[in-house]
Amino acid sequence: MLINSPDTVVSDALRGMAAAHPELDVDVERQVVLRRDARAGGRVGLVSGGGSGHEPLHAGFVGPGMLSAACAGAVFTSPVPDQMLHAAGAVDAGQGVLFVVKNYTGDVLNFQMAAELAEEDGLRVERVLVDDDVAVTDSLYTAGRRGTGGTLFVEKIAGAAAEEGAPLERVAALARRVNDSSRSFGVALSACTTPAKGSPTFDLPDGELELGVGIHGEPGRERRAMMSSREIAEVAVAAVLDDLAEAGPPAGPVLLLVNGMGATPLLELYGFHAEVAAALSARGVEVARALVGNYVTSLDMAGCSVTVCRADEELLRLWDAPVRTAALRWGC
Amino acid sequence: MLINSPDTVVSDALRGMAAAHPELDVDVERQVVLRRDARAGGRVGLVSGGGSGHEPLHAGFVGPGMLSAACAGAVFTSPVPDQMLHAAGAVDAGQGVLFVVKNYTGDVLNFQMAAELAEEDGLRVERVLVDDDVAVTDSLYTAGRRGTGGTLFVEKIAGAAAEEGAPLERVAALARRVNDSSRSFGVALSACTTPAKGSPTFDLPDGELELGVGIHGEPGRERRAMMSSREIAEVAVAAVLDDLAEAGPPAGPVLLLVNGMGATPLLELYGFHAEVAAALSARGVEVARALVGNYVTSLDMAGCSVTVCRADEELLRLWDAPVRTAALRWGC
Repeated sequence: MLINSPDTVVSDALRGMAAAHPELDVDVERQVVLRRDARAGGRVGLVSGGGSGHEPLHAGFVGPGMLSAACAGAVFTSPVPDQMLHAAGAVDAGQGVLFVVKNYTGDVLNFQMAAELAEEDGLRVERVLVDDDVAVTDSLYTAGRRGTGGTLFVEKIAGAAAEEGAPLERVAALARRVNDSSRSFGVALSACTTPAKGSPTFDLPDGELELGVGIHGEPGRERRAMMSSREIAEVAVAAVLDDLAEAGPPAGPVLLLVNGMGATPLLELYGFHAEVAAALSARGVEVARALVGNYVTSLDMAGCSVTVCRADEELLRLWDAPVRTAALRWGC
Repeated sequence: MLINSPDTVVSDALRGMAAAHPELDVDVERQVVLRRDARAGGRVGLVSGGGSGHEPLHAGFVGPGMLSAACAGAVFTSPVPDQMLHAAGAVDAGQGVLFVVKNYTGDVLNFQMAAELAEEDGLRVERVLVDDDVAVTDSLYTAGRRGTGGTLFVEKIAGAAAEEGAPLERVAALARRVNDSSRSFGVALSACTTPAKGSPTFDLPDGELELGVGIHGEPGRERRAMMSSREIAEVAVAAVLDDLAEAGPPAGPVLLLVNGMGATPLLELYGFHAEVAAALSARGVEVARALVGNYVTSLDMAGCSVTVCRADEELLRLWDAPVRTAALRWGC
């Protein structure tokens, strides 16, 4: 691994973010990344965070049009309420703060405690839980579904609404609507290696893959012999669309994220995207916008995930709105 | 690997690019990616290309402010003169075309042949060879130094000049100046696996690294026991700065690319960037702009490279100019 020590991997990365992105206010000690002008616009603050190892999520999404702040925990470990409380106080401009929380037990408890403490300080706080992963109902780290790729859609669209000056209730309602409209399914072609352990977190033999894997290498639905990119796309698309169909009749176009887990070459990921797009088209689903890349990762895991989000005109408009962060940037 | 077949990996990826980027004109059959408005502005055309497996280089850099077209070869194999000739003809708006060629024997010969054929067709063509890698003088695939991360600086800055309407001679002179001002050094922490071979292209045991590696896994300067991120940064920075010093006295600030080889997590890469920035600072070198990410990759190789480019005000201005491509995007 390209590290100094397992103990410094997160603080080293934050020092690197500070050096590379002078437009961000990186508090290395507290492990909080803030946009410099978070309070300037009198906007609703948007705070997220989670265990490290999923970069660019979340710190790479801090900036105009997306998050106001991100709290970084240790690798695959929730940040603590103190960080969230500090972030909320630092970004609150009197319009309240929305916590975007991936549905993992540690994150849920810590963000809840932070929300209670912030409210005692007189802040208005709303929370949205992201639980878009259809693969499993419960998991090693979760009561209920896991939050994965849908987080990117929630943070982008809620961030655009906040940037426009929408009030807290509306930003929160939009975030929940995006989560309710999003479904994800992931596949691992290799395990990931955490700095602390130094060896793969689970055993996935060459020539096998894990369908429905999470973003910490936690088990998925089933293990199979290696499949082609086309077969994987068909399984993933079927899983997300079948689940989405249960929530209501198909309606309109979708936002699509074809996400790499970290170690999958972009050459392969674009080839996979071709198959995902074809599988969606075969089922009559129109892709309004597509994003292909490594956005919600699992350290050095090889693999991919598919996230779709049903998008009406309002969500499309907010998706297209300008964003300027380390990892997502357009329109400004 | 996330593929259908080794035989279709490049065409599958190009189909995926076409699906994800409607703003690009992707010729899947010819394996050429063009910007849609390449001829509209009456600008100099900028054409590059090379073996696949280094994505987002080069197709991810096609668009306003950067390349007019990119030709994709098979994995780690030069594209052929027919592709380059087609690209040149498709982007030429009467102002001539610049070929940006990484210094590998196959690319050099094929771009040279294409230039001769294009000139027979009445096009004006200039070529610039990129040979920024200080690690080795000759290599398995090279007479002279290899072209690696410096290619990104050449394509961005020459592309900005072309976008502004600079004539061919000036765009070519700028491209050569950027190459002459750039130095790179790469390190492999693991080998890469090509689709055709299906197993690592060279043997790099756990706990060892290869200093001065190329972007095809070709051998570097030496193999060593694993080093810390800080130690690797010091070796890489010393290598590029010592070589740069031979070319003249240090002058002004630098552009810095801290590049991942494909499978290095962004968490680790940002930590490495902190050490590179510190090592440059310790030697009195000011970093004017920094870019951190996976830009010039080697499939699923774990590792990193450091590229610095001495930049005067003109190069800085062109670096900052708007760019809108799949992989680099700012200012528009």
